[in-house]
Amino acid sequence: MGTTASLLLHCPDRQGIVTEITNFISVNHGNIVYTDQYVDRINGVLFMRLEWELEGFTIPRDQIKEYFRTLFAAKFEMEFGLYFSDVKPRMALFVSRQNHCLFDILARYTAGEWDVEIPCIVSNHEDLRPVAERFGIPYYCFPVTRANRDELEPQEMALLDELGVNFIVLAKYMQVISPEMIARYPHNIINIHHSFLPAFVGAKPYHQAFERGVKIIGATSHYVTEDLDAGPIIEQDVIRITHKDTPETLVYRGKDLEKIVLSRAVLKHIERKILTYNNKTVIFA
Amino acid sequence: MGTTASLLLHCPDRQGIVTEITNFISVNHGNIVYTDQYVDRINGVLFMRLEWELEGFTIPRDQIKEYFRTLFAAKFEMEFGLYFSDVKPRMALFVSRQNHCLFDILARYTAGEWDVEIPCIVSNHEDLRPVAERFGIPYYCFPVTRANRDELEPQEMALLDELGVNFIVLAKYMQVISPEMIARYPHNIINIHHSFLPAFVGAKPYHQAFERGVKIIGATSHYVTEDLDAGPIIEQDVIRITHKDTPETLVYRGKDLEKIVLSRAVLKHIERKILTYNNKTVIFA
Amino acid sequence: MGTTASLLLHCPDRQGIVTEITNFISVNHGNIVYTDQYVDRINGVLFMRLEWELEGFTIPRDQIKEYFRTLFAAKFEMEFGLYFSDVKPRMALFVSRQNHCLFDILARYTAGEWDVEIPCIVSNHEDLRPVAERFGIPYYCFPVTRANRDELEPQEMALLDELGVNFIVLAKYMQVISPEMIARYPHNIINIHHSFLPAFVGAKPYHQAFERGVKIIGATSHYVTEDLDAGPIIEQDVIRITHKDTPETLVYRGKDLEKIVLSRAVLKHIERKILTYNNKTVIFA
Amino acid sequence: MGTTASLLLHCPDRQGIVTEITNFISVNHGNIVYTDQYVDRINGVLFMRLEWELEGFTIPRDQIKEYFRTLFAAKFEMEFGLYFSDVKPRMALFVSRQNHCLFDILARYTAGEWDVEIPCIVSNHEDLRPVAERFGIPYYCFPVTRANRDELEPQEMALLDELGVNFIVLAKYMQVISPEMIARYPHNIINIHHSFLPAFVGAKPYHQAFERGVKIIGATSHYVTEDLDAGPIIEQDVIRITHKDTPETLVYRGKDLEKIVLSRAVLKHIERKILTYNNKTVIFA
Repeated sequence: MGTTASLLLHCPDRQGIVTEITNFISVNHGNIVYTDQYVDRINGVLFMRLEWELEGFTIPRDQIKEYFRTLFAAKFEMEFGLYFSDVKPRMALFVSRQNHCLFDILARYTAGEWDVEIPCIVSNHEDLRPVAERFGIPYYCFPVTRANRDELEPQEMALLDELGVNFIVLAKYMQVISPEMIARYPHNIINIHHSFLPAFVGAKPYHQAFERGVKIIGATSHYVTEDLDAGPIIEQDVIRITHKDTPETLVYRGKDLEKIVLSRAVLKHIERKILTYNNKTVIFA
Repeated sequence: MGTTASLLLHCPDRQGIVTEITNFISVNHGNIVYTDQYVDRINGVLFMRLEWELEGFTIPRDQIKEYFRTLFAAKFEMEFGLYFSDVKPRMALFVSRQNHCLFDILARYTAGEWDVEIPCIVSNHEDLRPVAERFGIPYYCFPVTRANRDELEPQEMALLDELGVNFIVLAKYMQVISPEMIARYPHNIINIHHSFLPAFVGAKPYHQAFERGVKIIGATSHYVTEDLDAGPIIEQDVIRITHKDTPETLVYRGKDLEKIVLSRAVLKHIERKILTYNNKTVIFA
Repeated sequence: MGTTASLLLHCPDRQGIVTEITNFISVNHGNIVYTDQYVDRINGVLFMRLEWELEGFTIPRDQIKEYFRTLFAAKFEMEFGLYFSDVKPRMALFVSRQNHCLFDILARYTAGEWDVEIPCIVSNHEDLRPVAERFGIPYYCFPVTRANRDELEPQEMALLDELGVNFIVLAKYMQVISPEMIARYPHNIINIHHSFLPAFVGAKPYHQAFERGVKIIGATSHYVTEDLDAGPIIEQDVIRITHKDTPETLVYRGKDLEKIVLSRAVLKHIERKILTYNNKTVIFA
Repeated sequence: MGTTASLLLHCPDRQGIVTEITNFISVNHGNIVYTDQYVDRINGVLFMRLEWELEGFTIPRDQIKEYFRTLFAAKFEMEFGLYFSDVKPRMALFVSRQNHCLFDILARYTAGEWDVEIPCIVSNHEDLRPVAERFGIPYYCFPVTRANRDELEPQEMALLDELGVNFIVLAKYMQVISPEMIARYPHNIINIHHSFLPAFVGAKPYHQAFERGVKIIGATSHYVTEDLDAGPIIEQDVIRITHKDTPETLVYRGKDLEKIVLSRAVLKHIERKILTYNNKTVIFA
C-alpha cells in the first residue's frame, strides 16, 4: 500500500454527512482503504475515521486540510485531524526508575513494530540512562521535584519543541505533570496507572488492592488531564489474584499488565485510531 | 464417599499445628479426604480446611467439637467451625424485582447442583412471587422501606429463625440490611454488587461506569458488613466493553456477570471453603 | 423508537456502494438509526448492516425487498436479508437431559429480555417436560435415535413448519442433526459445544481437556453445518482451571460458560447482527 | 530471609506422609516458610512442596538429600528434588529470528526480577546477536537445519554442559529439538507455542486460527517432550479477537500473549514450583 491520508473527525450527527465525505474522497479519485464510524445516539455525535491512498488523489496533499475545512468542517461544526502515513509521529518517553514499560516499548521500537520515532527519553533520575544508551536513544535527566518543577518543566518543553515531539508517553514517570505542560499537549500525554481505575486512584494502588482484598487487579492507560488519574481511559486489562498474593507479588504481576496495557494504548495512538469526546475515548478497530 | 466432617480454622501460626491436627484425625482412624492450608506470613496466621470420613472415626460425631475445642482451640487461640456433609445448610433468598440471579440460583437448586435447602424467598415486592410459585418455594413479602424497616425486619428475623435459616443470599435485594440483622448473621449474608468494587460503590454503578468511560465492567460478591459495599470480597469477574455500549447494554450484559459471580460465591459458601479474616476472604480450592 | 427495517448484506467491495445505499434510504426519507460496515480487504468483500425507521419512509414496507433487489442486489452481486423489528423471530429449543442452557434461555424469555417467540421445546427425552410446563411452553418429545432418525426428523420438521419456526437452538441437544434438516435451516441452527473449538471436537470434551492437562477450558457456539463441530463460530469464552480440577468440576464449571456463550450467540442472532461468509461470522456490535 | 532449602516431591498417597515429613524438618530445627500440597484423588498421588530456612537446621546441607532418600524416598516410593535458594539455576535461551520473547526475558533479567543466570543465548541465525551484545550475554550461533542437526546438536550440548546449564528456554526457537537433547534435559526444556493447545498444533497457528474463524486466540507454554507440541502444559492465556483481525494483526497481538505466557512459565520453573506427572503439571502458588 502506498502513502495514505487519515481523517479523524467528530461532529453533531446529521443525515448524509458520511455520504458527503466519502463522495468527496471518491470523486477526487481517492481509493478508500479504511472507513469506520460510530454514532453516539445519546449525545447525537458522529465519529468517523477514513483512510485513503494518496496516489491518484486529485487534490494536492498540502491542500487537503484547507479543502476539508472549507467544504465540511465549518458547515458541520466538525473537529478533525488529518494525518499522512509517511509522517511518523515523534514520541517522547518519560520515565523514573522502573524499567519494565520502557523495555517493552524499546523492544517494539527496535523490532520496528511501531511506526514512530523516539527522539528522546526524559527522566527525573539517572537510573535508566544505561538502558537508553543500550538502545542508542538520547537520555535527558531533569531532576524534577515539586519544588523546582516550575523551573525545570519549561526546559523540558523547550527540549520537546526542539526535537519536534508530537506526544508524550509516561512510562512509569512517577511525577505529576503541570497544567501548563498538559495544555501544551492536549490528549497527547498517555499515562499508565497501576490499578483498575477509578478504583485505587493515587499512590500505592497495589497496596490498596491488597488491603481491600480484591480478587482481580488491573491497569489503566489514559490521557492525562488536569484531574489526577481522571482523564479519558484508552485501555484497561485485569488479572485474577488470590488470597495468597502479597503486595510484592501484586507489584510483580502487575508489571506485566502495565506494560501490555500501556503499549496497546500507545499503538492505538500512533495508528491515529483514538478520538476523545466528553472525557471518554472512541477506539476504532 | 460416606458422610464427612469438615473443619475450618484459623489461628496464629506456630510450628507443628498442622501435624498435631492431622495426627489427631489419623490416630482416631479418620480417613482424610481433603486438606488445604495457607499461611499468611505477613500477619502470621494459619488457615486450614480439613475433611475426613466419619465412618470408622472413633470419636462420636456429637463429641468432636468438644474434643477439638479442648485439645486445640484454646491452646492455639484458634477459631474454628465444624460441619457435617449430611447436614444441608439452609439458605434464604432475598430479592426485589430483578429476576436474573433468582432464576440462576433456582435453576441450580432444581437441578440438584447444590447441597443446600431453600426454605424461603423473601422480598419487599410481590413481583417475583410467580417465579417462586413456579419452583414451589414459599414466598414471603415484607414491604420493607426505610420508614418501616425497624418494624418489619424483626418479623423477617423471626421467620428465618423459625425456618432454621443458616445464611442469607441477597439476590439483587435492593435494600440496606440493618446492623441488627447483619450482627445476627455474621459473614453469613452474601450480596452481589454490580460493579468491580471498590470502583462505583453505591447506586447505579453501570451509569457511573458509563460516565467514567471505563473499558471493562465487573461484578463483586461479598459478605455484608455494616459498611456499605465494603465487606470481605468473595468473588469478582469482569467483561470488556467498548465505546459502543450504553448504560442499557451495560445493564443487560452486567446481569450475566452478576448471576455467575453470585452463584460462584454461594457455592463456595455452601461447600464451606471460605474463611474470613481482617475483612478479607481465604478461598480454598 | 418506532418500527424499523434492518438490512444485512454482503457483496464484492466496490467504491460507492455504501454511499448509494445510504442515499437510497435517505432520499426516501428513512431515518437511519444504525449503520455498521466492514470490508474484508483480503477477500474484497463488503459487509453492511443498516437499520432505519419505517415511519415516513416513502417506499411501502412490502415493496422494500423488491426495490432493493432490483436497484442494488443484482447490480452489486449482493446477498441480503431484510427484517422488520415488529416481526419477532420464532425459535425452537432442542434439548436432551441437561437443563442449564434451557433454564438460562427461559429465564431471559420470561423476563422479556429477548425479542423472540418460543413456540416449542423439542426433545428426544421426557426429562425436561416439567421445566417446559413450569414455563408454559409446549413440549414435544420425539425419541430420536440413530436408527429411527430418518423416520422421526420429518415429523419434527413438519411440526416446526406448522409452528412457523425461523431458527433452532440446540440447547444441549446431544444428537447429530441430519443434512436434510441442516439444509432446511441454513445458518439458522445454533449449537453450543462444550470446548474451545477446534480443540476437543466430538464427545466428552471436558474429559479430553482433563486428560490433556490444559490450564483453560472454553465453550463455543456455532452455526451447525454438515461438518460436525466445524460450522461458523459465533461466540467463544473461557475460564482458567488448575491441576486441582477434576472432570467433574470441569463439567460443573463449564456449564456456566456454556449457557452464557450460547445465550450471547442467540441474542446476536435475534438482533440480526450476524453475517456468515466463508464459514466464518461477521458480528456487528 | 536467609538461605532456604526447597523440596519438591510426589509419591503414592498414604496417611501420615505429610506429618512425617514436616515432623522431620521441625525436629531438626528447620523453620518452615512454605508448604503446599495437593492430592490427586483420582490417581492416588500426593504432591508436595516444602521450603525451610537452613539456618539452625541440624542436618548439614550436603547430607540432606541422602537423609531424605534413606528415610522417606524408598519407603514411600517417592520421587523428589532438593534445591537451595542460594544456587541460581542456569538457563540457556534458544532463539531464531523473532525477538519479542527474548527482549521480555532479558528485560526481567536485567531488572533483577528473576533468580537465574543466563550464561548463553543459542541461535540458528545471526539475527539476534546485536540484542545479545546489547545485554552483554554470550551469543552462540549454530546454523542448525534438519540436515545437519545430528552433527550440530552434540556441539550445542557440549557447550551447555561446559556452561553448567540446568534448563533451556525455547524463546521462539523455530526448530524441532532431537530426542537425544530432550532426554538430556527431561522436563527442563520450556517451549512457547503460539496457539491455545491442543488447537492448532504445528506450523502457522495464527493462520490456522484465522482460517477457522475463532473468536479467541491463545498461547501455551509447555515442557518439550518427544511428541510435538504435546508435552505437559505449564501456562496458557488468551485474548479475544474479532472478524476484523487479519493473520497479520493476530501475529502482532499474539506476540504479547506469547511473551507473557512464556515468562510466567519460566518464573514458575525458576521458583521450583512445578511438578510434572502423567504428562501434566501441578503448579504451586
